[in-house]
Amino acid sequence: MRFTSERRLDDGVLEREFTLGEIPGILWTPPAAPAPLVLLGHPPLGLDKMYPRLLARARHAAAEGLAAAAIELPGAGARPRWPAFEQAHADMRRALEAREPLTDEIIDALVLPLVGKAVPETQAALDALLTLPGIRGPVGYAGGVIAIGVRLALVEPRIAAAVLFAGSFAPRRTFEEARQVTVPLHVLLQWDDESNDRQAALDLFDAFGSEEKTLHANMGGHAGVPHYAGEDANRFFTRHLR
Amino acid sequence: MRFTSERRLDDGVLEREFTLGEIPGILWTPPAAPAPLVLLGHPPLGLDKMYPRLLARARHAAAEGLAAAAIELPGAGARPRWPAFEQAHADMRRALEAREPLTDEIIDALVLPLVGKAVPETQAALDALLTLPGIRGPVGYAGGVIAIGVRLALVEPRIAAAVLFAGSFAPRRTFEEARQVTVPLHVLLQWDDESNDRQAALDLFDAFGSEEKTLHANMGGHAGVPHYAGEDANRFFTRHLR
Repeated sequence: MRFTSERRLDDGVLEREFTLGEIPGILWTPPAAPAPLVLLGHPPLGLDKMYPRLLARARHAAAEGLAAAAIELPGAGARPRWPAFEQAHADMRRALEAREPLTDEIIDALVLPLVGKAVPETQAALDALLTLPGIRGPVGYAGGVIAIGVRLALVEPRIAAAVLFAGSFAPRRTFEEARQVTVPLHVLLQWDDESNDRQAALDLFDAFGSEEKTLHANMGGHAGVPHYAGEDANRFFTRHLR
Repeated sequence: MRFTSERRLDDGVLEREFTLGEIPGILWTPPAAPAPLVLLGHPPLGLDKMYPRLLARARHAAAEGLAAAAIELPGAGARPRWPAFEQAHADMRRALEAREPLTDEIIDALVLPLVGKAVPETQAALDALLTLPGIRGPVGYAGGVIAIGVRLALVEPRIAAAVLFAGSFAPRRTFEEARQVTVPLHVLLQWDDESNDRQAALDLFDAFGSEEKTLHANMGGHAGVPHYAGEDANRFFTRHLR
């Protein structure tokens, strides 16, 4: 892991860009160290494009005494193109535009290879981040792609709590894995999310095996999560990580 | 309104019992006055029986700088018996024990007369409580019987925000009224509530007309609302009443 830039934000948060092999990432640490770490999940649209929202989430986490980090997903941002993923994405778009149902095959082809690459990369980032003096476990995951969050919660024992956005396509396999998840979960659902099947999201919440799981449903579309929903999520992390 | 007892609790909260005509009630006020008021709804089981849970809710409200009050429901506790309500309750119990479906007639007979009496009584209590020097508006309602909370949110303009428990039988009429409710709502749902139809609760949440409405679903049965769910609800009140 190599730091490539460093700046101190006005609220005292230290923002550092890094690379881990070919993978770029950003780490935000609050003034009080060592801090528990929250991994910020996001959709595969590129860290550059996601930066404003990631920064806002990292600042809120820092206000609760939590560090935050995000890494670039495979095929996104400045990382090498991934033709198979682009093909799967094109297939999904074509089905949506033709108003055809999204088959299990289309969703599996889009999501499962992404999970298969992103999860071990996230674990490698965790190995590196947890060696830093300002960072300590336990670790939280706050997810963009639900299938990545579920797999991480299942296979990575350093993750002690997860905030999941029930707002992206979940393969059948994710439902099966959800039944085996046991860490405390805080699940966010946008009630009127135009790009999400509400009943499927409720079914996935029901499927989780965790003894402590909470669903917070709010009005509005995909990107309209209200600020107080983010505050509730940070308090959930504070309860479990501090 | 006549105060009949007064004691100072160890956390500085002033607890006063009162009567308003034939209706007994309890008022809790925090040390810092004047405080916005939260009306504590509860099932018609008697204030005596509900006291430990009401006291806990009032203490948590006081810790957020909120006053809290509860009045005895018609036919409950030390109030005169109400044979028609007892008959409707017996009809419901008989249907449940015979594993028959609860018809609209049974639910209407049980709930609508209770709403018809309890809502104007609550409004009269509000008239009296808001004349006290330690109490100010706006007012919140945190509900036991969902149909009472919905009617109050609809007809009582002093209620600026409501926390509703999606955990009791809702007549068709309550669904119709819910569509007309516009105040901010924070709805609690116990996911595994043995005495509640989860889908009906989700449908009711969907029906509310309020632009700001949040559903917090937690694991466990009817009485198992976790402490952090209560904290979230108090923060909702703090946001809207202070």
